[in-house]
Amino acid sequence: MQILNGEKITLGTCYYPEHWDEALWREDLSRMLACGIEVVRIAEFAWNKIEPAEGVYNYDFFDRFLDVAEEAGMKVIMGTPTATPPAWLTEKYPECLNAGIDGTLYRHGLRRHYNYNSPVYRKLCGNIVEHMAGHYGGRSCVIGWQIDNELNCEANEFYSESDTAAFREYLQKKYGSLEKLNEAWGAVFWNQTYTDWKEVYVPRPTVSGGVNPHQTLDYLRFISESTNEFARMQADIIRKYIKEGDFITTNGLFGHVDYQKMAGESIDFITYDSYPNFAYDLNNYSDKDEMKDRKWSRNLTETRAVSRIFGIMEQQSGAGGWNSRMMQSTPRRGQMTLWTMQSIAHGADFVSYFRWRTCTFGTEIYWHGILDYSGRDNRRLAEVGDIYKKVTALREIAGGEYEAAVGVIKDYDNIFDAEYDKWHERIEKQSQKALFETMQKTHTPMDYVYLTEKTGAEDLQKYRILFYPHPAILSGRQAAVLEEYAAKGGILVFGCRSAYKDWNGKCTMEKLPGVIAELTGADIPEYTAIAPDREVMVRWGEETFPAAVFTDLVDCAGTGKQEAVYISGDDAGMGALVSRQVGEGKVYYYGSAFTEGAVRAFLKEACAENPYGNFIAVPEKCEIAVRVKEGIRYIFVLNYSDTPAEITVLEKMRDMYTGKEVSGSLILEGYGTVCLRRSCDR
Amino acid sequence: MQILNGEKITLGTCYYPEHWDEALWREDLSRMLACGIEVVRIAEFAWNKIEPAEGVYNYDFFDRFLDVAEEAGMKVIMGTPTATPPAWLTEKYPECLNAGIDGTLYRHGLRRHYNYNSPVYRKLCGNIVEHMAGHYGGRSCVIGWQIDNELNCEANEFYSESDTAAFREYLQKKYGSLEKLNEAWGAVFWNQTYTDWKEVYVPRPTVSGGVNPHQTLDYLRFISESTNEFARMQADIIRKYIKEGDFITTNGLFGHVDYQKMAGESIDFITYDSYPNFAYDLNNYSDKDEMKDRKWSRNLTETRAVSRIFGIMEQQSGAGGWNSRMMQSTPRRGQMTLWTMQSIAHGADFVSYFRWRTCTFGTEIYWHGILDYSGRDNRRLAEVGDIYKKVTALREIAGGEYEAAVGVIKDYDNIFDAEYDKWHERIEKQSQKALFETMQKTHTPMDYVYLTEKTGAEDLQKYRILFYPHPAILSGRQAAVLEEYAAKGGILVFGCRSAYKDWNGKCTMEKLPGVIAELTGADIPEYTAIAPDREVMVRWGEETFPAAVFTDLVDCAGTGKQEAVYISGDDAGMGALVSRQVGEGKVYYYGSAFTEGAVRAFLKEACAENPYGNFIAVPEKCEIAVRVKEGIRYIFVLNYSDTPAEITVLEKMRDMYTGKEVSGSLILEGYGTVCLRRSCDR
Amino acid sequence: MQILNGEKITLGTCYYPEHWDEALWREDLSRMLACGIEVVRIAEFAWNKIEPAEGVYNYDFFDRFLDVAEEAGMKVIMGTPTATPPAWLTEKYPECLNAGIDGTLYRHGLRRHYNYNSPVYRKLCGNIVEHMAGHYGGRSCVIGWQIDNELNCEANEFYSESDTAAFREYLQKKYGSLEKLNEAWGAVFWNQTYTDWKEVYVPRPTVSGGVNPHQTLDYLRFISESTNEFARMQADIIRKYIKEGDFITTNGLFGHVDYQKMAGESIDFITYDSYPNFAYDLNNYSDKDEMKDRKWSRNLTETRAVSRIFGIMEQQSGAGGWNSRMMQSTPRRGQMTLWTMQSIAHGADFVSYFRWRTCTFGTEIYWHGILDYSGRDNRRLAEVGDIYKKVTALREIAGGEYEAAVGVIKDYDNIFDAEYDKWHERIEKQSQKALFETMQKTHTPMDYVYLTEKTGAEDLQKYRILFYPHPAILSGRQAAVLEEYAAKGGILVFGCRSAYKDWNGKCTMEKLPGVIAELTGADIPEYTAIAPDREVMVRWGEETFPAAVFTDLVDCAGTGKQEAVYISGDDAGMGALVSRQVGEGKVYYYGSAFTEGAVRAFLKEACAENPYGNFIAVPEKCEIAVRVKEGIRYIFVLNYSDTPAEITVLEKMRDMYTGKEVSGSLILEGYGTVCLRRSCDR
Repeated sequence: MQILNGEKITLGTCYYPEHWDEALWREDLSRMLACGIEVVRIAEFAWNKIEPAEGVYNYDFFDRFLDVAEEAGMKVIMGTPTATPPAWLTEKYPECLNAGIDGTLYRHGLRRHYNYNSPVYRKLCGNIVEHMAGHYGGRSCVIGWQIDNELNCEANEFYSESDTAAFREYLQKKYGSLEKLNEAWGAVFWNQTYTDWKEVYVPRPTVSGGVNPHQTLDYLRFISESTNEFARMQADIIRKYIKEGDFITTNGLFGHVDYQKMAGESIDFITYDSYPNFAYDLNNYSDKDEMKDRKWSRNLTETRAVSRIFGIMEQQSGAGGWNSRMMQSTPRRGQMTLWTMQSIAHGADFVSYFRWRTCTFGTEIYWHGILDYSGRDNRRLAEVGDIYKKVTALREIAGGEYEAAVGVIKDYDNIFDAEYDKWHERIEKQSQKALFETMQKTHTPMDYVYLTEKTGAEDLQKYRILFYPHPAILSGRQAAVLEEYAAKGGILVFGCRSAYKDWNGKCTMEKLPGVIAELTGADIPEYTAIAPDREVMVRWGEETFPAAVFTDLVDCAGTGKQEAVYISGDDAGMGALVSRQVGEGKVYYYGSAFTEGAVRAFLKEACAENPYGNFIAVPEKCEIAVRVKEGIRYIFVLNYSDTPAEITVLEKMRDMYTGKEVSGSLILEGYGTVCLRRSCDR
Repeated sequence: MQILNGEKITLGTCYYPEHWDEALWREDLSRMLACGIEVVRIAEFAWNKIEPAEGVYNYDFFDRFLDVAEEAGMKVIMGTPTATPPAWLTEKYPECLNAGIDGTLYRHGLRRHYNYNSPVYRKLCGNIVEHMAGHYGGRSCVIGWQIDNELNCEANEFYSESDTAAFREYLQKKYGSLEKLNEAWGAVFWNQTYTDWKEVYVPRPTVSGGVNPHQTLDYLRFISESTNEFARMQADIIRKYIKEGDFITTNGLFGHVDYQKMAGESIDFITYDSYPNFAYDLNNYSDKDEMKDRKWSRNLTETRAVSRIFGIMEQQSGAGGWNSRMMQSTPRRGQMTLWTMQSIAHGADFVSYFRWRTCTFGTEIYWHGILDYSGRDNRRLAEVGDIYKKVTALREIAGGEYEAAVGVIKDYDNIFDAEYDKWHERIEKQSQKALFETMQKTHTPMDYVYLTEKTGAEDLQKYRILFYPHPAILSGRQAAVLEEYAAKGGILVFGCRSAYKDWNGKCTMEKLPGVIAELTGADIPEYTAIAPDREVMVRWGEETFPAAVFTDLVDCAGTGKQEAVYISGDDAGMGALVSRQVGEGKVYYYGSAFTEGAVRAFLKEACAENPYGNFIAVPEKCEIAVRVKEGIRYIFVLNYSDTPAEITVLEKMRDMYTGKEVSGSLILEGYGTVCLRRSCDR
Repeated sequence: MQILNGEKITLGTCYYPEHWDEALWREDLSRMLACGIEVVRIAEFAWNKIEPAEGVYNYDFFDRFLDVAEEAGMKVIMGTPTATPPAWLTEKYPECLNAGIDGTLYRHGLRRHYNYNSPVYRKLCGNIVEHMAGHYGGRSCVIGWQIDNELNCEANEFYSESDTAAFREYLQKKYGSLEKLNEAWGAVFWNQTYTDWKEVYVPRPTVSGGVNPHQTLDYLRFISESTNEFARMQADIIRKYIKEGDFITTNGLFGHVDYQKMAGESIDFITYDSYPNFAYDLNNYSDKDEMKDRKWSRNLTETRAVSRIFGIMEQQSGAGGWNSRMMQSTPRRGQMTLWTMQSIAHGADFVSYFRWRTCTFGTEIYWHGILDYSGRDNRRLAEVGDIYKKVTALREIAGGEYEAAVGVIKDYDNIFDAEYDKWHERIEKQSQKALFETMQKTHTPMDYVYLTEKTGAEDLQKYRILFYPHPAILSGRQAAVLEEYAAKGGILVFGCRSAYKDWNGKCTMEKLPGVIAELTGADIPEYTAIAPDREVMVRWGEETFPAAVFTDLVDCAGTGKQEAVYISGDDAGMGALVSRQVGEGKVYYYGSAFTEGAVRAFLKEACAENPYGNFIAVPEKCEIAVRVKEGIRYIFVLNYSDTPAEITVLEKMRDMYTGKEVSGSLILEGYGTVCLRRSCDR
């Protein structure tokens, strides 16, 4: 591949030849190259340019552009244009449209208003992709393909008639009979029993807005499956035509998609779209939010869970905004660099800025690119040039992987199940926020680890400690993998409400915590949400910290050992934490959602906190992220604040930007970054 | 009847045989009986179990269950399953569905998604009820029937085409001609005049969401009538088949139903569904709400207005919650007992817990019963056993009526009229809150008294003082009944805005207060809402208290006597209260909405405050409720707080739980209750 | 004309003969005349009274009323009844209805539920207007006509199929070809390109609710055009039948209408509906809103921009409220007078109170008139009598124009464009609020000046200083007019974001500020929204004041002169204000939205602040408004507060109410007003 090949970090930008006078193309590409931009992504919203009427294809426009690109020496990523069907298409085939839950069709005029399951739409998308890949796939400047644009952005629920038809097929295949469907969905409750397949639908309007949760769980799995099928349909076509070494990707991370599956069957790697300036949007800003743009490190951690080394297809370079909503300030001096380094520190070897020049028309007139409308040289373009110098200096890092000894386990069944489960969602949100923020504050790099059908204990063993916060749904197979991980020396931490549901989201009648009762040595006789007029504290040895949202009362069973108790609230004195020695490792069952105090206590117990503390000391407001390659650690320190940060380098290391050895006190400017090189074996 | 027969207080529970392996039935019933539960309600969501396809009936399932029940000695209440029509029914007959005001149909998947007026649905409901009652009505274990489930819960507005057709019929019957309809609805305003019956609809979407208020009033009366017809249709069928002594009830109290009518024509008594834990729902909790779960005493007062002695069909026993909304903590130690005693103190002789074991699937996986999913013994089951001991000790109270010397008059025409009248609603809400809370704080038991066509002065005479806060609509007949009440010694208090509307909700052109001008001796030349930047105080003799929301300027007319004036605000110096001696009693017209200060002043004037103060002193945070039977008062003291309460028993009384005589200081634990026995004639 | 003829100030009221027993008519009119009310407006919601069935006309009802009016000597304004189509009409022709954006039709039952573009509705409206004007136009008591009622009130967006059809026609006429439409709308963005006219619609539901902004701009222009066509259609008919000297007007000012156009082609003058009591609505009240009812002076300034001398068709006389929303207190003693004088001070020579007697039925039972339901004499009627005395004393003012040396330029293209442009809306709102409030506080009368195709420099020259806050859209022609204004000595102030869009709302690729770059001598290399965690201050000579919302960095170009810089925020030290000497005048480009500090600085610079300060001193809480006639200034001072205000008259002037000479200290009661007479040439 021409990017992500371990040789260098590449810069790119998103370009829309159709938005500009052709006379500007040559100069635009040459200015890009002059500041280090070597790749452009094009065409992802340009269906009509190639197929202006059904079945009529015209390749001239992009042929002309690719000629210019080749001449200039610019590399090109082609996007398939299926996120914006032509007006002629949706007007003729309204069955291609997505709809709200009440059946109101989403109409032409924005983007992503189609559904994945309309047979007509699949066919028409197949046609355009076939023609594009067939015609442009062999062009020398083309280095890769992007499928659609931001799958499941804007809408990730689908309620068209095509979706109901496909959902029925999906369920027939899954369950075989209505008897099994009724059993799986607990349809006897409130007399929902189905007696004919035609009575089965995607969720529809109900009196109180509630929907059978087991149906919903299957529905979200179905949406994920539909999205993946749509992507695979395109990937299969593209692969027929592309040159050796060219790649297939898709951009962004959105809800209701199993990206683990997508990575396995359709794409070579994921490219994330990173817009940290949302943290400063005038409509969403909160003084109380400590993490702000630093929260995007959480998204990058998710991205890395799909592809260890990944790309950024859209890296924010200007103020974001639509005419109809969202209003951001322009990135401040240094923030573009900061956000670029944030991406690279987490594993990006390709960073493509959105977009070259700000569009002068349409919904996104306020979604600013590197350049403003006029295209005149500006501060942001200059900053790109400076970034190019830095990434050139970072060249040797390419291909190096992010290092983390702490993992947080996730899986899509629980993510989908929790989404409409307001009890579980509240618990999960609290814990995920506490885990991420505590890792950040304590400078403890972490990974998200998706537990799929293919995950084995060997995939987990590299983590000293794994949190699996609240897997309501947990299979015996998964429990066995986790047990093996612990047996081989791992530390495994469950939070409250683990393992109380089966694969359909139905609650187990076994003693809690169900399938992990033996593994954890815990027994949960009672549980409760923490009442709004109560504060519950936990004491674990010397440590005291607050519980949150929910409390399982955790007794010992078998070889479990009582570690901590609640010391306030209605259940003061009851058990809060049980551990069990499992082989060379340990399993914990903690009865509440995680707070910063709880996370710190577990990290301390596992000696996993601040692993680089011996050779670098940085203030809480800075992030530490480390990439490792061939026995070398590259330590990024990122200052998200607008004031200087003092860091102390306790051993001599090399400043990658300058190539100089540094040690002792080092001042990072506001929004400043540094990358320090250090052997792993010292 | 086997419950509510004045012999004992009976415990029950809600059970769903269809949710569990049949192998569990026998053990479940035997565990219930072991802790004092003698009645189960079943079948109210089980249509498909009896009629799995249209016209195909199968009685086996519940025959088997009733066999087990009879064998175990368990009594059974059968619910008709009409709240959850089968999927085959609504798929085939979508005209049975209810709809939103914009016509969007509410679909299969929750409950209560049907309308009462579809002829097809009435017929199909008649069929299932006829078959159920015919088959199971004679079973020896069956002691009564519940019609539907929570009529008008979830949705109490109906906008289907069937409803429009029925509304037209209702109006044709009521008005005879469009001329009279136009006159009644003031249709000349904004040119709403109807010239053909087919132009008349239930409310539909309008530009600003407003609807003709007189049409709305008729529409709500029509909904109430539809609900009552639907209930009566079922009751009439059931009565044909049931054994002598078996009863008919329905559960819950919801909007847009005239329960006075229902009690007179369909049900033997009402059974309320009491869920005080909503006060601690994580989504609704407010620190500022002083009354919290104590507010359910207001609902129980409403229940008592339907049936002096009533049942609780669903008494909360666990945390409430749906997967899609609502999240409550588990009732704390003692709260189940507290809420049970709250029900009993207000007149419940049957208390049935919702539900035996928490359902492991469906929307209500978080609506916890006595037992959790596993069914293992737990704290709440133990508390039921303790409650059983207490209600056994209270046995002699059964049939005794709640005692109140203060009444608050209500009527459905004003309730319906005020609902969409935002001016009146604000006034009414303020006063009803102040009345209830002040009675609670001053330990002054009160009744709600519904003024119906059948109510005579003799029904009112037992109250020393009656508040009729703001009857905008008031007929001459009603005024005459009230005058007679006063003439015979009663004290009658009207608040602002009384009697300014006619029976159609149109405003009178008479001098205000219209039909009660003479009765009250009041004349109201002007009125105003209290401006948001004003505070208005009232001086009445020695007392000073705030007015609220609205002020009528109240002058004297005829034999009226000026009692109080506004002393601040734009109308300082103007009249606020006029009284008139009527026979042996007195009538007051007070020009504002009621505040705590105003209510206290009227209670003081009537010497009606804290009627048991001479023999018991309790802190404000405890409720006093008294049931009387055969010359004995049973005084309940209920501590809603989580801290102990000291009460002082000023005369010797018997503690009913222990059978011991007590006097002097008595400490109630947090959530503690006591019931003290005292002769009325002492 | 019998009103607005420069001879006197006339009082009127809104009367609904169809709401009352005919027996009341004579007495009502005679009571009106007794307190000085000489005009009634009638019939605007009475379609059925004249056309009870399609094509069936009956003139009797209003013939009878007009007979009574003529006999009594009452003048009459007839309203066309097209705002409330009959039930028979919308039931038979549902295509006449307006709809929500999702296509849900707005149904009969409120008002204004029709669309302007249905050919059937235009025809039926034409018929009723033709018949009304034909029949009643010649009656001697009739003095004028009101078209419809409050055009674009309730709904000012239209989404019916008739609107789509008309929108297509509008666009075909405007653009001629789809190529030009696609170009104008930037349809290449997100592949919106249209290939057939039938693919073009009014805005429809989209996934995220966004709509192409250029389409939206055309859509709002189209709505305005539709409204104006509908009005003109009626006006053209009416003019055929009315007597010489009779006038045509319409009432209220609402969104999406170009009133400059309407004034030029359909109406003789505008009549505003003034309801300042909304400031005290219980649902909208805010302690923080300093201006409250004084804000209506802003609306009156808008009214004056349509007609220098205008009428008030509905002047609030009682509490406002619908049954379904809105709840106001009764106007306080003096407020009716205050609000009447507010209208007159701004240029009203006709003030008609809404309404005579409060309607006893319908949605507006709480929209109070002068009289309450009973019609008995009351405080408000007495206040009308007092007002009549005052306006009689003010007789000589009639025809005198409001005097302002400060203007704020507006235009409909920018108003429409900003409405769905959330960036621009925020900027515009900030500045308009600051401009109005600062003028009020500094006692600096101002005008709104609409820049239309017909506006020439000569129309602007009377203003010493003109603010054109943020004209995103600005044509070369407009820039030339403005340049001429400056060249002849005017001071012209632009705020940030001026001139960055073209006539389609597309952004210019020229250097900013585009078409006014040369005129202003400014160059804007960068810009940003002010981040929510930043405060930006500006220093201009001695003055320091806050910027707001947005900052353009403003450099000099050509002969521009740097006047001010930002002194805090991310761009401290950058340019904030550039001026350029243009002929005898000066042009400023200010880089932010206006704050009070900024406005004060510009007024000071132009010596335009508090122009009457030499002869009268009044506290900030009072408004000064001046009308001029034949060399005499009539200075109104209006006290909006409920406490007395001391004003100091520095020269002898005549108090118009009393006719006495006054000077020195003068105390205005709470809500008090005074009008002082002073020669202009002193």
